[in-house]
Formats: sequence, C-alpha cells, structure tokens
Amino acid sequence: MTVFFGGDYNPEQWPPAVWREDVALMRSAGVNLVTVGVFSWSRLQPAAGTYEFGWLDDVLDLLHDNGIGVCLATPTASPPPWFTRAHPDAMPVTADGVRLTHGSRDTYCVNAPAYRAASQRIAGALGERYGRHPALRLWHVHNEYGTTCYCDHCAAAFRRWLARTYGGTGVLNDAWSTDFWSQRYGRFDEVLPPRATQYLSNPAHVLDYRRFVSDAMLAHYTAQRDVLRASGVPVTTNFVLGGWVPVDHARWAREVDVVAVDDYPSSLDAHLQERAFVADLARGWAGGEPWILMEHAPGAVRGTDGVTRVMPPGQARAAASVYLDGGAGGVLYFQWRAGRGGAEQWHPAMVPQLAELAPIGRSVSTRTPVRVDATRALVYDEPSMWAWQSPHLPTPFIDYTATAQRWHRALGPPVDVVPLAAALDGYHLVVAPLLHLVSAAGHKALRSYAESGGTLVLTFGSGLADEHCRLTPGAFDDLAGIRLVRHRPGELGVWLDEIDPLDATVVLTADDRPVVTEHRYGRGLVRYVAADLPDLARWVRS
Amino acid sequence: MTVFFGGDYNPEQWPPAVWREDVALMRSAGVNLVTVGVFSWSRLQPAAGTYEFGWLDDVLDLLHDNGIGVCLATPTASPPPWFTRAHPDAMPVTADGVRLTHGSRDTYCVNAPAYRAASQRIAGALGERYGRHPALRLWHVHNEYGTTCYCDHCAAAFRRWLARTYGGTGVLNDAWSTDFWSQRYGRFDEVLPPRATQYLSNPAHVLDYRRFVSDAMLAHYTAQRDVLRASGVPVTTNFVLGGWVPVDHARWAREVDVVAVDDYPSSLDAHLQERAFVADLARGWAGGEPWILMEHAPGAVRGTDGVTRVMPPGQARAAASVYLDGGAGGVLYFQWRAGRGGAEQWHPAMVPQLAELAPIGRSVSTRTPVRVDATRALVYDEPSMWAWQSPHLPTPFIDYTATAQRWHRALGPPVDVVPLAAALDGYHLVVAPLLHLVSAAGHKALRSYAESGGTLVLTFGSGLADEHCRLTPGAFDDLAGIRLVRHRPGELGVWLDEIDPLDATVVLTADDRPVVTEHRYGRGLVRYVAADLPDLARWVRS
Amino acid sequence: MTVFFGGDYNPEQWPPAVWREDVALMRSAGVNLVTVGVFSWSRLQPAAGTYEFGWLDDVLDLLHDNGIGVCLATPTASPPPWFTRAHPDAMPVTADGVRLTHGSRDTYCVNAPAYRAASQRIAGALGERYGRHPALRLWHVHNEYGTTCYCDHCAAAFRRWLARTYGGTGVLNDAWSTDFWSQRYGRFDEVLPPRATQYLSNPAHVLDYRRFVSDAMLAHYTAQRDVLRASGVPVTTNFVLGGWVPVDHARWAREVDVVAVDDYPSSLDAHLQERAFVADLARGWAGGEPWILMEHAPGAVRGTDGVTRVMPPGQARAAASVYLDGGAGGVLYFQWRAGRGGAEQWHPAMVPQLAELAPIGRSVSTRTPVRVDATRALVYDEPSMWAWQSPHLPTPFIDYTATAQRWHRALGPPVDVVPLAAALDGYHLVVAPLLHLVSAAGHKALRSYAESGGTLVLTFGSGLADEHCRLTPGAFDDLAGIRLVRHRPGELGVWLDEIDPLDATVVLTADDRPVVTEHRYGRGLVRYVAADLPDLARWVRS
Repeated sequence: MTVFFGGDYNPEQWPPAVWREDVALMRSAGVNLVTVGVFSWSRLQPAAGTYEFGWLDDVLDLLHDNGIGVCLATPTASPPPWFTRAHPDAMPVTADGVRLTHGSRDTYCVNAPAYRAASQRIAGALGERYGRHPALRLWHVHNEYGTTCYCDHCAAAFRRWLARTYGGTGVLNDAWSTDFWSQRYGRFDEVLPPRATQYLSNPAHVLDYRRFVSDAMLAHYTAQRDVLRASGVPVTTNFVLGGWVPVDHARWAREVDVVAVDDYPSSLDAHLQERAFVADLARGWAGGEPWILMEHAPGAVRGTDGVTRVMPPGQARAAASVYLDGGAGGVLYFQWRAGRGGAEQWHPAMVPQLAELAPIGRSVSTRTPVRVDATRALVYDEPSMWAWQSPHLPTPFIDYTATAQRWHRALGPPVDVVPLAAALDGYHLVVAPLLHLVSAAGHKALRSYAESGGTLVLTFGSGLADEHCRLTPGAFDDLAGIRLVRHRPGELGVWLDEIDPLDATVVLTADDRPVVTEHRYGRGLVRYVAADLPDLARWVRS
Repeated sequence: MTVFFGGDYNPEQWPPAVWREDVALMRSAGVNLVTVGVFSWSRLQPAAGTYEFGWLDDVLDLLHDNGIGVCLATPTASPPPWFTRAHPDAMPVTADGVRLTHGSRDTYCVNAPAYRAASQRIAGALGERYGRHPALRLWHVHNEYGTTCYCDHCAAAFRRWLARTYGGTGVLNDAWSTDFWSQRYGRFDEVLPPRATQYLSNPAHVLDYRRFVSDAMLAHYTAQRDVLRASGVPVTTNFVLGGWVPVDHARWAREVDVVAVDDYPSSLDAHLQERAFVADLARGWAGGEPWILMEHAPGAVRGTDGVTRVMPPGQARAAASVYLDGGAGGVLYFQWRAGRGGAEQWHPAMVPQLAELAPIGRSVSTRTPVRVDATRALVYDEPSMWAWQSPHLPTPFIDYTATAQRWHRALGPPVDVVPLAAALDGYHLVVAPLLHLVSAAGHKALRSYAESGGTLVLTFGSGLADEHCRLTPGAFDDLAGIRLVRHRPGELGVWLDEIDPLDATVVLTADDRPVVTEHRYGRGLVRYVAADLPDLARWVRS
Repeated sequence: MTVFFGGDYNPEQWPPAVWREDVALMRSAGVNLVTVGVFSWSRLQPAAGTYEFGWLDDVLDLLHDNGIGVCLATPTASPPPWFTRAHPDAMPVTADGVRLTHGSRDTYCVNAPAYRAASQRIAGALGERYGRHPALRLWHVHNEYGTTCYCDHCAAAFRRWLARTYGGTGVLNDAWSTDFWSQRYGRFDEVLPPRATQYLSNPAHVLDYRRFVSDAMLAHYTAQRDVLRASGVPVTTNFVLGGWVPVDHARWAREVDVVAVDDYPSSLDAHLQERAFVADLARGWAGGEPWILMEHAPGAVRGTDGVTRVMPPGQARAAASVYLDGGAGGVLYFQWRAGRGGAEQWHPAMVPQLAELAPIGRSVSTRTPVRVDATRALVYDEPSMWAWQSPHLPTPFIDYTATAQRWHRALGPPVDVVPLAAALDGYHLVVAPLLHLVSAAGHKALRSYAESGGTLVLTFGSGLADEHCRLTPGAFDDLAGIRLVRHRPGELGVWLDEIDPLDATVVLTADDRPVVTEHRYGRGLVRYVAADLPDLARWVRS
C-alpha cells in the first residue's frame, strides 16, 4: 500500500474545461486520491425525486483515466434547500430552543426520521451507482460529524437511549445523583435534553447527553456504512477534533474501516507539535494501524485569533513529514482548488501552491506507511476532556487538551497517545494527566498496569469522579501511596493537590509542600505530580 | 437564646447509616441547628398525589434525639420533574422569549397558578405534619428567591400591579415619562414586561418590573408563611444578595420573623471586609435585632474569577467572629456534607473540615447574640443599586455596591448599614454615597436628619432622579449649599461633579476644582464629596 | 440661503409654559430651525382612529410667531403601543427568531403591511394638515432608518426582490456560488433570510440581504416622501452612520431633496477629525451641494467605552466650524431640552449649555453655506465596508472605516469623500483603500480615471471580490503593474500583500519585500500600498 496524497476536490464549482486542467496538474503533483462529493447533494439530487449523476460519472471517469483514485463522499453533511424547506423538523434546535435554518452546512438533526431516510436514499443511490467504479478507493460517509441538537425528536430518542442504558429510573437517579436539587425522575418521559435552564445543569445529565448524541450520530454513520460495504470498498468518516465535538472517537474508531482525521492546528508557532500530537492520537485510535490525514490546510494556519498566517517555506513539507512519521497512510488537504465564493472562499487551496506542494506529493505518493514502535504512552481521554468543561468546577482554568499536549511534548517521539481503554501492558511508561473521570474498569487497568511493572505518572485533578461525574475523593491514594488532603485550586499555578505522602517518597517540594512523589506499586512505580509544574521533562523518565 | 451553629443538611442523598455518623459528628462539633428539606420536593412528593414523609420523620426524630434543632425548609425553589412536565406554563421565560426547562434549580414562575397551588399544597402538608415536631426551631420558606420571568402570566399580573399602583394610565404615563419615544399607553393592557426590544428600554419600566417581581415573589412567600405560622414557630426565608436579585430586601425584612441571609464573598483577599458589610447590612434590615447567617461556604471562597480558593488556617474562625460581632444569632454553612454528584458537587462542605470547624462550633453554640451599638450609619439603597444598572448612563463604570463597601471600610466598626427608609435620628454621622434615586420621603428624611444636628455625607452621583428615574438636577443643592453645574463623567476617577460652592466651605480641591465641601444645614453639617476619591477615611469624621 | 441652526425639540414632554420659555431662549440663541414630531406618534394618534393635532398646531404657530422654522418629522420610527399590540406581526424578528416587543424605539418591520399602511396614514395626515404651514421648512421622514428584520413578511419580500434582481435561480446560484456547501436553489421560495444557521453563512447571501433591507426601507421612505412632496417643501431623512446600519447611503442620497446626517463621534480625543470625515462624506453623497448636520450632541462625546465626556471650552465652536467648513447648510443638535425621563434622559441637551452655544448660533445662523473645492478624493464604499464584516476573512482585524479615516487625515482638507460610483475625472488624486468589492463598472471607472491622467492610490485588501463576494485574485494587477503572489495576513501590521513588482517601480521596501510601488497607467499613475503602514502622509502626494 502506498500513501495517499491529494485533497478535497469540488468539480461542481467549475466547468469541465477546468477539470481537465485539474487532472493534469494533479498528475504532475503526485496526487493519487481526491475526495469528491462532500457537498454535492444539491447537484446530485436537485429535487426530491430527481437524480443527476452524469457530471459525477464524467468526473470519476476522468480521474480514473488519469490514474487518480477517488474517495467518494456521501453528501449528507449538507442537505439541499429543497429538503430543508420540506422538512423543517429536520433542522437542528439549539439549547435555547432556536430552530436553525438552511444557509450554512452541518444543519441537520440525525434523529429526524425524514433526514435519516433522505440520507439513506442518497447514500444507497451512490453505493449502487459507484460501488464498482474502478477509481473508487474509499467511501467517505458524511463530513465532520458534530451537530448537537435539542429538538423533540432528540428528546424522544434520548429517553429511549436512557431506558436502554439504565433499564429503570432508579438506576438513572442513582447515576445522575438526582437527589441533589430535587431532580428525581419518576418516569423516563420526564427527562429532557439539557436545554436552557435557570442555573447550572446537572453535569451527569450533560455528559450522558453528549454520549447519546455521539451514539445517535454513530447510528446515522453505521446505517450508511452498512449499505456502502456491499461494494467491498472500505468505509470511513473524517473525524473533526475540538472541545465542542460531541463524538466519542475511541468508540467510533471501532466502526470505521480506517481511521481518518482532519487537523487544523491553532497557531503557526506550534503547528508541528500540534500535528504530531494529532498523528499520535489518530494512530492510537487506529490501534497502531495506518490512518489517514483526511484534511489539513495547505500552506497556512488559521490561528485562534482568526488570522490565517502563511507558513514559511519548508513548513508544508515538515508538516507532511510529521504525519508520515506518525504512521499516516494518507496526507490530504482541504482543498484542491478554492471556490470562488461561499463561506470558506478564503480557505487555502493546493492549486496556487503547487510549486511547493508538488514535490512533496511526488515523494509522499511513492512511500509506504511507517509503523511506529513506542514504549511510552500518553492517555488522552475524551470523556475526561468533556468533564473538564463542566461549569462550576474548582477552577475554570484547566485546559485538558493543552495540558495533554504539554506532556506530549515533554515525552517526545516516539510516543503513543491512547484512550484509557487501550491495552497498556506493552508500555514502560504511561502518563495520564488530569484524568478527571475514571470508571471501575479504568481504575482496574491502571492498577494492573503498575502492578505488572510499568511506570505510571498521574497528576493533580485525577480520579476526581466516576463515569457519571460522581465524586470519588482520594481514588488514587492507594495507587500513589499518598493521602489526598484537599485540592487547592489557584495555588502553584492553576491547581495544587495538598497531599500527605504516607508511603511515597517525596522527590520535589515547593513552598514546603510535597509536589512530586514516587511510590512502588506491585512491580511498578507510580509518580504523582501534585501541581501544574512549568517543566515536565523531568517527570517522564521511566 | 444561644447562637445557632450548623448548616444545610441533605440526608436524602445518603443512606441512613451515614445519617447516624452525621449526627454523632454534629454533636461533637457543637451543631445545634441544621436546615433540612431545601431540595427534597421530588423525595417528599414523588408524584402529584403521592407523599413520602417516612424518611423525613426518621431524620427529624434522629436529630431531635441527639439534641439538634431543625430549620425545616419548604422545597418550592426546585419543583420536581413530574410537576414541570405537567405544567410547562409554570417554567420561567427569559426576556428573549425562551421558555426554560427543568434541569437545574430555581426554575419556576411565581405568577403561574399551577405553581402557586403546588407550592401551597406541599407547604401545607409540611406544616401540618411537622408544625409540632419538637426538633423544629424555624421554618425556611423556599430558597434564595430570585427568578425573574417574563411570561404571559407575569404580563397579566404586572398589568394588575400597575393598575393597583397607579390607578390610571395618565399617572403611569407621567411616572414613566412615556412621551419620550412615543411610548404613551392608552390602556393598561397595552403594557408588556420589559421583554427584548430593538434598542434601549425605558428605565422606569425596567425599575417597576423589578419592583413587581419582588412583590410577586413576596406574595408567594407570605402565602406559605401564613400557613406555617399556625405552628407558632418563626418563619423566614434566606436572602441571596447580588446585583441580579429582583428582591427589595428592605421591604421583605418586614415580612420575616427573623432576617436570614446567605453570604458568598467575591474574593479571598477581602472576604472578611465583605462579610462585615453583609453582617451590618443584615442587622440593618433586622432593625438591630439578631439575624441569621443562613449560608456561607466552609473553608473556601469562590472568587469572581471562578476559582474556589482554600482559606488559610484561622480564617474560618475569623469569618465566624465577623458575623457574631455583627450581631448574628446564627452562623450556618452551606453545607454539612457535600453531595457526591450534581451541579454543586464541588461546593465546600463541613465534614472534611471538622478539625477546624468543630472548635468554632463548640464555642459559637454557647454564646448569645451581641447587640451592636453604632452611632454612625451607611445608607445602602437597593433601588439606587438597581438604577445604577440602567443602560446608557453617563458612565457604565459606577459600581454601587463596591463603592458602598469602600465607604463601609473607611467608616470601620461599629457602623450600621441601613436602607434609606430607616430612622436616622439616632446617628451622629450618616454616609449616603451614590444615592441615585431619592423619593420625596427620602429627601425629607435626609433634610430632617441634617436639620436636627447630624453630619450627613453625600457624594457625586446623588439625588439624580426620583423614584421613577425622572431626573431631578441639583436636587441636593440646598442641602449641600452648592450649585451643581454639570456632571463630568470620566474625570478625577470615574466621575466628578462640577460645582459652584455657593454657601459651602471648600475643604478639598483638585485640578483647581472644589472636590469636597461642607455646609451648615440647620443644626447639622452636610459634606459633599464631588469626586470618586481614592482615600475616604478623612471624610467620615463627624 | 442661510445656514440652519437649532435641534430636535420635543415639546410634548413639557407643559406650554415651558414652550414659551423655550422659544424665547431659542430666539436669543440664533435658533432658526427645530425638528419637531420625531417621537410624537402616540400623542398625535393616541388610538387607531383618533388624531390630536391641537397641541402641534399651537407649537408650530408659536414657533412661527417667533420666526423659528420647523423641520417636521413623520413619527414612524416609533409606533405607539396601541399599534404594536394590535399588530404583533409588525414587530421585528431577530436572526435567532426572537420577535421583539414594544418598549424602546425603532421597533418595526418595514415589510409588514399593517405598519406600511399605518405609516402612510399618519404621514398623509401630517402632510395634509401642515403642508402649507408657514413655519415649515423641511420634512423629516422617520428617524435613522436602521432596523433589520428576519420575519416571514421579510422572507416573502426578499424572494420577490431576488426574483426581480436575478430573473431566475440559475443566475442567483451563480451569483451566490451556491455549489459550495450544497446550497443550490431550485426555486426562489426555497430562499430564506440569513437567519441563525449552524455555521458560517454564505457572504453573498448576507450581502444581498443587506441590500434588500436597504431597498425595503427606501421604499418605506419614498412612499412617505411622495405624499409629502405635494406640499412643495423639500423632504429628507436623517442618515445614521455605523457599521451595523443596513442602508446604502450612496443610493439613498439620490432620493432625498437634501442630504441630512447624524454624527456621533466615537471619542473625545479625535472628535474633530471624525466630524471632518463625516462632513466630507455627507458632501460626497450630496454631490457637493449643501447638506444638513441634523443631529450632534451638544457639549459632550459619548465614547465607545460608554462614558459621556464633557468637551473642553471652545470645542463646541470648533465642531460647528468643522461642519461649516465641510459645506454644511445646517448645524443642528440632538436635542434642545432633555427629557426628564426615558431611555436617553442622560443625552446632552442645548438648554443647559446656552452660555456656550448661543454665541455659536447667533453667528452660524447668519452665514451661508460654503462651497468646497477639492482636487483630491477618498473613495469610501459602503458595500466594501459590509464585505469587511464577513466572518472567516483572512483576518478579523481590518477596520475599514478607521482605515479610511486614517487616509482622510493624511490627505487633510480640502478633500472629497465619495462613493465608488462618483465621477472621479475632476480629481488630481484619488485614494481608494481596502476596496474589497469591485464591480465591473467600478473596475472600469478606476481604469478610466488613471488612464486619463489621475493619480490613483490602491492598497492591500483591494479588488478582492466582485459585487457578489466572488473572489477575483489579482484583479488590480494590470492597473498596478504588479503580480499579486499571495496575501500575508498578520504580517507587517494587519496585512501584507506579497507582490512581484513586474512593471512597477518599487518606492518602499520592508523586510526585503516591496511594499509601495508606482506604475504609469495611460497618462496617470497608480500607487500600490501593499501593507498597513503607520505613516500614510508620504503616499497621498500626486
């Protein structure tokens, strides 16, 4: 298998003469895969009963004739105007009750029956028409799943999800701690999505809603996947990363034939380190198998300040190398050619930068994916990231992902970034910072890892609660050989755990308090980093 | 009467074995009063027609057997899910028209008939069952009244309130200055709550709506109170303080059998000064009688930055002393034992801190309330605080409460903090900063105070308007012996009044302008502080 | 023609005794024009079928008897409560779907039939009653048109506007680039206003909605104007300026008998420069004819920080001079006498400041408007300003208006500020900064200007797109004699264009990059300023 090189390609925005220019340029740039059809629904199905596949036939044939493979998308991330006008109940509703309208992308409710049916129809039509097309390399279901909806369809589906998950309201009330603030439910049909309410929401309610939305989207994905798999071609969807995304990627990774991620770093200064983190994270979800970098921006980084800065010469190649070194089986860009208009008209594109990108492509497209052999791992746990977004925590200044990235940098390559559910026994060292939520299985896995000889690094802000946000004070005391006395938010940086180092050895103190301890646990070692230290390198040695 | 010591106790979150541990710990910590039932509605009445009092019987008996008194709450601040699902019209609506949903606390509309009826039923049932219980010391109606609603029930009730208050639309139009911007009302039923509108709202409209909401909540309170009073046990509700609270506490203080306040300072640095201000304020509302500190956080302060900082050793005792020195008849915490889950799971609790709190409790619970004898008073006027929240003032940088607190610190103890309607004649010195709104009665009271020999300190930003936000330029000129030429916002700090010191003596100038003047008025002295001075100590001498 | 001096006058807020005092003061202050009736609808028509003109008869007669002219307003900017209660569908709806309510001003939907009809009725009644009144100098339709609405009336009107503008959906789809994100419309009735949607809106959609709102308001204006013109008295409306205003003033200027603007500078420090810019801009819209400064605040400036700062002595006169030097035919204030209450009770007024204002008035009211003869022009293009408000631009840090004002200062007087559609051939130098949107006609005009000998200054961020926000990369390359390589947002200030100075002469470099170039084009010169330079003075020489 050679590595894919290419990007999103939207020929419907251009006349056929441009297509021919495109494929010639693609060939010269080593492009061997383009993603087609992501936003083509209104072209493919211009009205409820009308399909127009001719132009797409031509595009796929042209690509194939030029030796360029196709990653064919189902267009369900952007339903067409005729659909949305006919089915306003398929438009998402915000927590405030605002029914959104057509005019952007991602405007859908995965629990709306009309939308589910329309999605299946267009996916089925594409599968039937193109499942045997010789250009087809990969199915790309939907795009960047991520729309949270609070409508009545969702409310009904949420209740069914809760009934399946908990069996009875007694278990639900216990899991959600509903005795606080008189929220005890007598029947499942009393439960609502966490819509706008007068004051703080119940964090267990919010957390389960996020899990439910993830599962509801997953059902929308698997329904399409199951139809497309008839073709024998692998199926995936491109993960979008970020704190707002209501998707449990570790769970989804088990349902895709190959893990694919989009990566948009947050600053030009640190973009290579951010990319390395995402590469190791994607490989972790892929269980070490090759994964696909489905989108990144060619030649520029749009920072969190909203400025799209041009990358210095050489950085595009460096970015590609980072992904390849992280085991990527594809390095793809959004996008081949920028649209003339529309909301993302300023998004960078490959065509104007081929002088720099073509040599990269010619080199990348002849390689095979590397295998990464890491003996150290960083645990990155999305539910813990979600829990750190709860309101009214002891401090609002914990940034889970940024902290994980700081540990990732301190570890340096090669390192795996893995979910808590991963097998840890092969690693010499495992760092698990800010592990807010830990289930019974998680507790067991960490103990078993240390017991059998691993070095485990835990930090302040860990073992705070179980998977339902129920506090578990001192849950790691036995593992770290300490007694957690109390949390001291806002001290020694963002947070200090005041600890009593019972059986542990104090290896760093600050302000007369123990700040790093070490403790033999079974045949392993547990290091506890009780404060938000500026320098982490010293604590990642095994 | 000995001082109450204890806190909120939520036994419904724990099994009976924990209750027994709790009462043993309470006894050892000097706890003589716990507040029970604040959030127990869904446990006490799990469905419309079903009551379950058994567990509460057991709790009250257990407490009584251990000599611990009970402050029994009606649970109406958090109606249960079954109620809110059955009566969506009892859920509050925001100014933007968003109907809020169950999922937090405080989600109710006091003007919704179904909610009023349900509140009376549960309060009546509690009164009947526990009115004679030997543990009962105090009734605690509701919790922290404070939900503003803009629904149609409220609109109808507001119109009735206006008709009662003004008699006819002519008086209303005059009070609200409706000739500005063509807002003249022909009939009361043309009036709406101050819902979202295109640009600035009429400040008199907004002010009256706040008064109306205060009165509507008061009616909800007094209805419960009147039922509970049959027990012969005193009735109160716990005031929550803050700029957003739509409650006129000076008026409410006349309707409670004992004033009770919750106190959550805004920063660890100044928490003792903030507590002293609240203590003097609560005593002012109580007319000098003992009052109850119904809630404060044990051992930590959650700052306005959202960080919950641990108090240094000794500060918990210092905090209790401040309240006791301010005449508190009770020093209670929220909460005895933290819930495992729910929105406030990180709120501090007493149990983990008993090493520090128990000695305080054993000492406090043997004391009797002190009487405070102050010869100086600070006027703190909530309607003026509300008026300072109007949009489009000459400056948005006036913080009424923070300024009052600065004067309070400059005055130092002992000092009373009193509403404008209080009797002032006993004081040697009265400081009334930023008195934005002054009614005719207020004007008369201040003049009468000065006339009969008191020293009165007024400041810039005073006497600006009458009780309907109608400007009254120069309203204090006669009292201060000056001529107010114009306001100069943004000069010499946040605001300078340019004045002509007609008959007054200039005692401080800055930038060649008179800044502090003194003027004999009757047998008294009026000092006018025309700018926002950094040092106030010099101006509080009588 | 002498210059008008005066201000908004709201006698309905005061008893007749005050009116008599007012006119005496006006006479002594040189007041020769007052604007009456702007917010009088609820007084003039207190119920649907009832008119009360008596008080206005008296006011106009009194003014006339004292030689004071009247600018009579139609009161449609603030419909009365009885109207809004009877026609909730005439209340505007936000993009989020919130139906606003009565309680402020400007709360109307110009596309609501009931509001259109009511507006015509009251305008017609005023025209009939006062069209021949000897005091009448000017009709003032409405006030500061500016309310954007997203209701269903607007949706229907928008579709009609689109059908008129584009003829068919094919042209619309092309103009709006709807192939991006699957937004292709099959029928006009699939189009909605750009209401709240899940992610970024289509900028062409947003831009056209703003044009549509401008045209819809213009139709509301012209309908009243056409009725009032029967009187033979000139008709205008007062433009309000600001980035939020959905009005294309260059187009509106062709529909008013005299251009009138309101001017509220954003800071005391630079208020005279801001006023000079507005004066030159208003004159540009007026095609060089006298224009009226219909409102400015007497004696104070309310900064963007919300603080209303008093102007130092002499600045009020300086402000008046700036307007007069810019060709004003009227210098008017908001307002003569401040209301006692209402939302703008703190707005400055003339009466308390007559000591300073009366001498200005006595001098102004004897002058005739000056003619300004400028040989240099600055292009200020409102659609480009709108385009710079799109989300997801290469940088959010471009402030179009502030940049135009910096160039205006560098140019110094005399200079015209003109729309792109103005005739440019009379100027020696034309500066057109940040010209984001350029239509084919705009391109032609700029080329024709340079060709025939003018000096044209263009900058980075120019020629980015056509009038539908469709990118036109390198659109000015021929004119500037360069090749635009790429935009580099965030470099050398907010933005650097990386250029290849093909046929142009590089006259400034920075960081080894060409930053200013000059190029002979026809008989003229084109200067390209490729970065956001701190010092502009050097580049405005012809």
